Amino acid sequence: MLIVMRSDATEDQVEQVLDLVRQLGFKGHSMPGASRTAIGITGNPGPLDPGQFEDLPGVAEAIRVTKPYKLVGRDLKHDNTVIRIGDAEIGGAEPAIIAGPCAVESLDQTMEIAEVVASCGVPFFRGGAFKPRTSPYAFQGLGEEGLRILDKVRDRFGLKIVTEVLDPENVDLVERYADVLQIGARNMQNFSLLKRLGHARKPVLLKRGLSATLDEMLLAAEYVMSEGNYNVILCERGVRTFADHTRNTLDLSIVPAVQNLSHLPIIVDPSHGTGRRDKVIPLARASIAVGANGVMVEVHNHPELALSDGPQALLPEMFVQLVREIRDIHKVIAEAELNAAANG
Amino acid sequence: MLIVMRSDATEDQVEQVLDLVRQLGFKGHSMPGASRTAIGITGNPGPLDPGQFEDLPGVAEAIRVTKPYKLVGRDLKHDNTVIRIGDAEIGGAEPAIIAGPCAVESLDQTMEIAEVVASCGVPFFRGGAFKPRTSPYAFQGLGEEGLRILDKVRDRFGLKIVTEVLDPENVDLVERYADVLQIGARNMQNFSLLKRLGHARKPVLLKRGLSATLDEMLLAAEYVMSEGNYNVILCERGVRTFADHTRNTLDLSIVPAVQNLSHLPIIVDPSHGTGRRDKVIPLARASIAVGANGVMVEVHNHPELALSDGPQALLPEMFVQLVREIRDIHKVIAEAELNAAANG
Amino acid sequence: MLIVMRSDATEDQVEQVLDLVRQLGFKGHSMPGASRTAIGITGNPGPLDPGQFEDLPGVAEAIRVTKPYKLVGRDLKHDNTVIRIGDAEIGGAEPAIIAGPCAVESLDQTMEIAEVVASCGVPFFRGGAFKPRTSPYAFQGLGEEGLRILDKVRDRFGLKIVTEVLDPENVDLVERYADVLQIGARNMQNFSLLKRLGHARKPVLLKRGLSATLDEMLLAAEYVMSEGNYNVILCERGVRTFADHTRNTLDLSIVPAVQNLSHLPIIVDPSHGTGRRDKVIPLARASIAVGANGVMVEVHNHPELALSDGPQALLPEMFVQLVREIRDIHKVIAEAELNAAANG
Amino acid sequence: MLIVMRSDATEDQVEQVLDLVRQLGFKGHSMPGASRTAIGITGNPGPLDPGQFEDLPGVAEAIRVTKPYKLVGRDLKHDNTVIRIGDAEIGGAEPAIIAGPCAVESLDQTMEIAEVVASCGVPFFRGGAFKPRTSPYAFQGLGEEGLRILDKVRDRFGLKIVTEVLDPENVDLVERYADVLQIGARNMQNFSLLKRLGHARKPVLLKRGLSATLDEMLLAAEYVMSEGNYNVILCERGVRTFADHTRNTLDLSIVPAVQNLSHLPIIVDPSHGTGRRDKVIPLARASIAVGANGVMVEVHNHPELALSDGPQALLPEMFVQLVREIRDIHKVIAEAELNAAANG
Repeated sequence: MLIVMRSDATEDQVEQVLDLVRQLGFKGHSMPGASRTAIGITGNPGPLDPGQFEDLPGVAEAIRVTKPYKLVGRDLKHDNTVIRIGDAEIGGAEPAIIAGPCAVESLDQTMEIAEVVASCGVPFFRGGAFKPRTSPYAFQGLGEEGLRILDKVRDRFGLKIVTEVLDPENVDLVERYADVLQIGARNMQNFSLLKRLGHARKPVLLKRGLSATLDEMLLAAEYVMSEGNYNVILCERGVRTFADHTRNTLDLSIVPAVQNLSHLPIIVDPSHGTGRRDKVIPLARASIAVGANGVMVEVHNHPELALSDGPQALLPEMFVQLVREIRDIHKVIAEAELNAAANG
Repeated sequence: MLIVMRSDATEDQVEQVLDLVRQLGFKGHSMPGASRTAIGITGNPGPLDPGQFEDLPGVAEAIRVTKPYKLVGRDLKHDNTVIRIGDAEIGGAEPAIIAGPCAVESLDQTMEIAEVVASCGVPFFRGGAFKPRTSPYAFQGLGEEGLRILDKVRDRFGLKIVTEVLDPENVDLVERYADVLQIGARNMQNFSLLKRLGHARKPVLLKRGLSATLDEMLLAAEYVMSEGNYNVILCERGVRTFADHTRNTLDLSIVPAVQNLSHLPIIVDPSHGTGRRDKVIPLARASIAVGANGVMVEVHNHPELALSDGPQALLPEMFVQLVREIRDIHKVIAEAELNAAANG
Repeated sequence: MLIVMRSDATEDQVEQVLDLVRQLGFKGHSMPGASRTAIGITGNPGPLDPGQFEDLPGVAEAIRVTKPYKLVGRDLKHDNTVIRIGDAEIGGAEPAIIAGPCAVESLDQTMEIAEVVASCGVPFFRGGAFKPRTSPYAFQGLGEEGLRILDKVRDRFGLKIVTEVLDPENVDLVERYADVLQIGARNMQNFSLLKRLGHARKPVLLKRGLSATLDEMLLAAEYVMSEGNYNVILCERGVRTFADHTRNTLDLSIVPAVQNLSHLPIIVDPSHGTGRRDKVIPLARASIAVGANGVMVEVHNHPELALSDGPQALLPEMFVQLVREIRDIHKVIAEAELNAAANG
Repeated sequence: MLIVMRSDATEDQVEQVLDLVRQLGFKGHSMPGASRTAIGITGNPGPLDPGQFEDLPGVAEAIRVTKPYKLVGRDLKHDNTVIRIGDAEIGGAEPAIIAGPCAVESLDQTMEIAEVVASCGVPFFRGGAFKPRTSPYAFQGLGEEGLRILDKVRDRFGLKIVTEVLDPENVDLVERYADVLQIGARNMQNFSLLKRLGHARKPVLLKRGLSATLDEMLLAAEYVMSEGNYNVILCERGVRTFADHTRNTLDLSIVPAVQNLSHLPIIVDPSHGTGRRDKVIPLARASIAVGANGVMVEVHNHPELALSDGPQALLPEMFVQLVREIRDIHKVIAEAELNAAANG
């Protein structure tokens, strides 16, 4: 926190600010200047509220100068985090592709889709056994039966399983079956769940909340990391805006913004980000082109019969084609980065 | 759901839609018209996704015609719900005022503020023992010690206690001390918590999420009610927009919108809705004028030392004045409503 | 602008910043402190872009410390501006009420509505002769014929005329008929129009743009004032957000925010702000309770036949009732302010 | 418009709706169905307001079924519009690249940048002679002198000139110098300007407003086209949201959404869309990958001295590299589309 005094502030007013800082148990550093004085504050365990100081006489403005997160930031760890799950990785040289149905609906449906996913050489399979639904009357997922189906997908096809966990009580259960534990957008600031996942032994895939700022998303990751689990993957999945041509507005600019501040990998979910099949392919392409570490897309063999989110699921043949394109676009980007590094 | 066919749709295309409806296990009602056919769907347990039908040939548009909620709606229960907590009520003839500090910080601080609140004849006291904080390093509340302090407030002043519960595990504990269980904005779609509170014996105060639509807020209340707890109070507390002159944008228009659709009471929290003391008083006045069933405001005896949200807390003398104004404005509104009813 | 250097910034890096400031033709004031140096910039004609400095080595942050407007601000003129139009005023002791149809449709319709407005003792009449419409195929207003009808309203009822002007070419024409020139939300940053109205001899009613920040609205007023027309009335009319229960989200918190920074009067338009009749009355009440200097509402004798915005127009009897309520609520607020001033 | 009656609506109520439709001068088509009646409306010159009907007794919902635009839509013209400017084109086989400084500042600056642009084989040069600025005190552009400098750029390098026109009065002047007339985001609904440009003989580049929906952007284009100028290029440049890590939130999903509905070409401006140089390159790549017909980027030889928007301008060497990447990514996309067409 930096307190900027008005140009006509008296010495008494500066002292009053310093007194308050001391009273709060922190350290104030007065920096008198040509036309006005600035006061730096250190020793605070977390961010202070600027308003606390802006009400004092003589204060022009109070500005946060330190970022409120530590473990997620590049200051602490400069190199990119690569998360390894068996022989697969997220954040490494290749873009990670995670695919599968929105919800696990039955053994047959799941196996059929898994076969398509595995046949493309894609390492990660997604599918919800516990589904967070806006209405209490909507399909809520198969629960543990769904997890057992996902287990069979891993056994048969060697796919790594990404699936959502909704509350602290179920973490133990889901962790027995999953390779990556997903936190949904609505739970991004469910702090009890975040802390519990900080003690999980599996990586966490943290989806951005519908109206989360960059700082809030990084602080949600900090919650998990501060409890000891450093394997966090961030995921952009669209935010809520006035725009009505897609279900949410996919904010691809957060990808370079995250990469600038944090060492954690970030992927994009264009299925939830757009809500419509015909926009998933162009936005998946764009996600790779913007530099994301991967994409998560929904695939369904019979989307017209899907129990949730059918209209955003890709048909198998669309998915096969998309995987090819992702790899081609990634090759162009990787070469461009190599050139830039060589010249820069 | 209503399916509107294109004017040039063939009979085969109409049949194809009806087939899909049957396959999904619902009932389709074809309504041929002069220039095009419409198809109504009934028997669906919850809302259907329009996209599922809009991809079929011959379909012009698919429109939801039934609201996805039942228990919260006026169709089912026409008269306003009045929630009684001992001798106090929310949703009744008088505006309910809930006041107190953001967080319970100590016995002394809490008792001093409670004395101010009680001296105005205000029946409800708020104060957080468990605090949801954006940063893991910020003050997280006193926990059970805080609840015991709130218990003393009730014993000494007869105030009813409103306090937040963060996760399903703590519902039993908080319920032992609280008169009203608050669900914070970030937890509005924490469905596990909503369901658990559906089994609580105390009323629930449900705050609107930062980017929740009207339907989503009503459906969150439906989650609680569908489990058997019908005592739900809604609370507008500001939404997230581009506007940067307040912390959130207080959306007072949701008050008449809720009252139009639902029998549940709705109050307003102008403290979180604006984030700054100098805007709390005008917006608390406006909340009563717009017809809300009450307001929840933060009061602090030493806001400059508050451990959270100090800049938005009212000073005791400001609060005393505000209570008077709220009652005066409410009298004008109540008379106007009487006149309107007499003339209408 | 204040440049905050990193704590490990070298003297050379500080010099480099000062060099750039000089190169740009401004003056840099270095303020070395205990742990880091801050640099103040003066002499810049308008706001600088922080990004221009944040790219330099050693710079931690660049912060705007001076507000970009001058004439609209309270620094320059502390007392509230009262705008006098004949014997009526906006920004004075009484709340200003402006009422009438969205569009002037015919002489009969306009006269009938004007009679209702005048019978309540309301001094201002609104009605559009030139209508900005989203679609080129929608009714665009009667043009000069509409202005002549408004002239007759003034002649017959003594009402002051508020009407919109769409482009610089028509300012002369509209000014011949109008008492107050309205700038619509979509034109809030039509800088050519703003400059032209800076030379008009009639007051300007400036509506907030659909996604305008507080600063942008004040700067739009500054455009008008910087050309010499100091009679500007601001108007909140709802902003665009994700919320879908009203056409726009009325942001009443901007009223105290404007009053804090600017001496200009601010009114509220709850008709466009909500788009639906049943929400206009509660939000008009709230607008007065929040402290606005007046309201602008749409009234129509046959809203179901209105050529534009019928669903948001009040029926005559609703308007009569609203005027009474506005005056009663304003009395409560005015007394409260007097008490606060006496005690404060 | 389609009116859906309640299931318990009486025949009288249906007649009342039909009466109103007749009174408004349109045609109502009653479509009685199994459980409820629907009424279609035709003959209306533009869209009707659903609220006008939803207030009538017996009406459940009023739904717009026809899109309010005609000339911009694919219903009228199925094939993509290719806009030819001399030997260059926008909307054709190759992605169009438009590059140059934000503002024309001097002959030397402009010529130096133009040389970089021309050396990459890029056909379009951008540069503002008239600048719309939020503050009246900011640099407003060189005016006609700036246009004459742009003329020299065309003469020397054969580049086509894209430059902004701010008001109807200046259209004649700007048209004498420009090859493409740009309408800025703040003027997207300046209907006088749109109509005037409908009579211009040069193509129009129409930027999306900061809070414009897809329909509003298409209707703004419809304004230009309805006056006879069919050469309109749309441009996404970021919208205003709560997100604070970029100046605006670039909404790439509007690209496939526009292409689905309209035959007009659409390009992306990642410079204004992000406001920061380090995000321009990744988002320019993503714009091509999402399928846009081109990009418009700002390039500056000395961005730290730029009179406007320096922090978002690319350095010359970054631009040269970007052009290469754009072409490589476009090749991948074009091949993918060919494959999809061959298989589909």
